[in-house]
Amino acid sequence: MNKPKKHVFVCSSSRINGQQRGFCEKKDSIRLIQNLMREVQEQDLSSEVIITNTGCLGICNQGPIVIIYPDAIWYGGVTPEDAAEIVNSHLLNDQIVSRLEI
Amino acid sequence: MNKPKKHVFVCSSSRINGQQRGFCEKKDSIRLIQNLMREVQEQDLSSEVIITNTGCLGICNQGPIVIIYPDAIWYGGVTPEDAAEIVNSHLLNDQIVSRLEI
Repeated sequence: MNKPKKHVFVCSSSRINGQQRGFCEKKDSIRLIQNLMREVQEQDLSSEVIITNTGCLGICNQGPIVIIYPDAIWYGGVTPEDAAEIVNSHLLNDQIVSRLEI
Repeated sequence: MNKPKKHVFVCSSSRINGQQRGFCEKKDSIRLIQNLMREVQEQDLSSEVIITNTGCLGICNQGPIVIIYPDAIWYGGVTPEDAAEIVNSHLLNDQIVSRLEI
């Protein structure tokens, strides 16, 4: 299969029983996911980047959480307004957004 | 933060609006996640492995999907009964389970 160059995971607090309960979703992570998807499309990265929502990552007090693999970079306290910087800096130019790294 | 040595993502078909709709969840991916979590605990890997459920990964016809990062190995058509082999082979011994790789 055609593997993505970067795979971005964003907590949407989706429990395995279907409940959507948790800190990240309350802190606007759905809008963050939507902004990341829009930025990826606008920067023409759709063929090499996948954005995937996840269940709880266990460090809710540091959420909303964004993880970028295979780099294994974790970002915390990410707001919808940070989406453009993450896409432009990390995904387009491989520059970690250090102010958000945890 | 204390990053995991391996991060296992399993599709649980969780949409960002909270709906749990999709192929993987219908094909028993929730039991697969539970089995992976139990095996990780039994093999005493809890401090170095995280299991995370995800939303749709876009290749439903090849599901249920398991991805292991930072290795970027994708497994498809994974059943709950495959959990022990994935944990023992890939997570414990770094041997890819090639029969499941996509």
